[in-house]
Amino acid sequence: MTESARTKHDALMARAERVIPGGVYGHGALVPPGHPRFYARGEGCRVWDVDGNEYIDFMCGYGPNLLGMREPRVEAAAARQRELGDSFSGPTERMVELGEVLTERVRHADWGLFCKNGTDATTLCSTIARAATGKRVLLVAGGAYHGAAPWCTPTKAGVLDADREYLRTYTFNDLASVERAASEAGGDLAGIVASPFRHDAFHDQELVLPEFARGLREICDAQGAALILDEVRAGFRLTRGGAWESLGVDADLSAWGKAMANGYPLSVTLGSEAFRDAAKRIYATGSFWYGAVAMAAALETIRLVDEEKVVEQLEARGQQLRDGLDAQARAHGLVVKQTGPVQLPYLSFEDDDDNAKVNLFTTEAVHRGVYLHPWHNMFLCLAHREKDVAEALTRTDEAFAAVAKAF
Amino acid sequence: MTESARTKHDALMARAERVIPGGVYGHGALVPPGHPRFYARGEGCRVWDVDGNEYIDFMCGYGPNLLGMREPRVEAAAARQRELGDSFSGPTERMVELGEVLTERVRHADWGLFCKNGTDATTLCSTIARAATGKRVLLVAGGAYHGAAPWCTPTKAGVLDADREYLRTYTFNDLASVERAASEAGGDLAGIVASPFRHDAFHDQELVLPEFARGLREICDAQGAALILDEVRAGFRLTRGGAWESLGVDADLSAWGKAMANGYPLSVTLGSEAFRDAAKRIYATGSFWYGAVAMAAALETIRLVDEEKVVEQLEARGQQLRDGLDAQARAHGLVVKQTGPVQLPYLSFEDDDDNAKVNLFTTEAVHRGVYLHPWHNMFLCLAHREKDVAEALTRTDEAFAAVAKAF
Repeated sequence: MTESARTKHDALMARAERVIPGGVYGHGALVPPGHPRFYARGEGCRVWDVDGNEYIDFMCGYGPNLLGMREPRVEAAAARQRELGDSFSGPTERMVELGEVLTERVRHADWGLFCKNGTDATTLCSTIARAATGKRVLLVAGGAYHGAAPWCTPTKAGVLDADREYLRTYTFNDLASVERAASEAGGDLAGIVASPFRHDAFHDQELVLPEFARGLREICDAQGAALILDEVRAGFRLTRGGAWESLGVDADLSAWGKAMANGYPLSVTLGSEAFRDAAKRIYATGSFWYGAVAMAAALETIRLVDEEKVVEQLEARGQQLRDGLDAQARAHGLVVKQTGPVQLPYLSFEDDDDNAKVNLFTTEAVHRGVYLHPWHNMFLCLAHREKDVAEALTRTDEAFAAVAKAF
Repeated sequence: MTESARTKHDALMARAERVIPGGVYGHGALVPPGHPRFYARGEGCRVWDVDGNEYIDFMCGYGPNLLGMREPRVEAAAARQRELGDSFSGPTERMVELGEVLTERVRHADWGLFCKNGTDATTLCSTIARAATGKRVLLVAGGAYHGAAPWCTPTKAGVLDADREYLRTYTFNDLASVERAASEAGGDLAGIVASPFRHDAFHDQELVLPEFARGLREICDAQGAALILDEVRAGFRLTRGGAWESLGVDADLSAWGKAMANGYPLSVTLGSEAFRDAAKRIYATGSFWYGAVAMAAALETIRLVDEEKVVEQLEARGQQLRDGLDAQARAHGLVVKQTGPVQLPYLSFEDDDDNAKVNLFTTEAVHRGVYLHPWHNMFLCLAHREKDVAEALTRTDEAFAAVAKAF
């Protein structure tokens, strides 16, 4: 993307700055200057910015586009429901069907409460944990992201100390830190919130240690607290069901969103039987939470996850990307680390505390039509086929060359 | 709706109870036993339940269906955007256009932050008010509904005292009660939250007294606090712009949702220039908040609000309904009160503290194909034409007869 190819972008940004605080807010604002901020069109794994520049997209809407944008079978399922209607004064049969599908799929889950934002789902988990246990303290990993509500937002402006009064932190994969925090809660521990793996921004990703996951489960059992798994970011990409099932660890409550309806707005809190009564006692609602079109899209998305073996496909393409990037970096004499699951790529450079290298790398890639993120985990989708990843790699090689030249 | 016509409903409820806490949760669960809980289809002002029973719908999805379900021009606008894509990693030009339309339309508004739930919009107002003022206390009217987050949910299960530590109440239309609460805040008043009129559930509705609205503005100005207007429920039905503009009162922050995209999930916080910097400093985001399809639907919905003179149309049909119901009640020797704006009907019976009369009335109406709510304000939509209201009235007459016979 050359300067001259940003005419419409810059004009739109000037308009946006008049009517939107900062022009763009939220996660879409958190990109270096060279990255596009406004999108015009998307199809599969490709997006086009407002100036018509095309990108192979490795952010996938920060997760929602699991199968690729405008997946025809999902669009057809959504269209069929749309003919019947979307926002009623109550649910449709789609909600019941989706509850049945998810409780069959996720081992710990006996019920689901559908909502719209990932933040809704994590907040419902916290509220249900407190209602069920009658206790107050929640433990979260320091640096983990669980949403943008006052109790969890990473930005403190407008947030009161009271909003966090019963929130304590631990260090991911450090069981002693959890034991310490749980003990300090002094019998008032309502729940421990964890991500399936450490996927913090600005930080190398970290897979969970099996003994850590099992240790969390034991501490929750010993304290009568809820184990809350935040699957919003990684759900449907990582495993078929709950992320820690293969470790023998089941959550009590889990939060899901993003990818579940391939871009249609939907999230859900899943829970085990012991927490059903508390889920009935809290008040969970939103104007659009019965929206049947998003639920129809989710039913078809989840069907396709199995039919198309999405987890396996994403693993294969993620490995292809990781291997290719590794080889290229080495060839250019650069040392990079790629961490976390291959389906959610994350790349960092050695000796790059100020992110100068990774910013240059992703900016050069973006200028060559490959949309990469410098400090947030990326996302693969089913529409990334072998040839798309291969095409992206031909361009990242030049981006590595630019980094090698500059440093 | 006879008992035999509920076969599918009861079977679906049995399935739902297995996978959804309570079977149906949220506002859709808050109806008497005779009311349908599961919907199959909707068109204009008509909905059909899962057993095929047809209703003239006076709830409109609890607000979202402003023009009627499946309004062809809104659906066409949404479809055009859907061809381009929905959930990108950033916004599209639709967000900027919608920001321009809303800031032109609502007098106090210089900017907007788009979100999904009404609760998102009211919570953003609170957070921005606190960030801007550096103060903590929020005043809300006792009994008013501003969402389902811990700070505002009407149900206390799972909510901590800390979540409400800086929340105080006043009585709607009682300026002395506001003055008292504001004074008790002792210089720590961040904002006063108000609904355009008192639309509490289980309570006759109450229009705002002009001197009350003006008094709130004066108190906020004197204390350096934000006046926050919650337009989620009534917005786009009551007035063209802000609800209190005709009284000469502008909010600092306002929350909107429900009707703005005719059923597509979208809400927004609007704010004045003085609060823009605080809106930039907080972290406002959600996985689907850039969703372009809902914004395209909103642009067309708002265009149609003007073109079709929706506020005036709803007033005319609301008056027709109110006059008809009044005449019928009188003819049956019943005393009813109809309160609030005619576009958001609310009916109660004299000497009916346990709601027995109004429950019987709405249940009898529902059995005759007119969906009314016993203790929540109802909603008109543009698709309620004169003949639909007239048809509904032929059936409510029989429902009043049943009440007159029973009491």
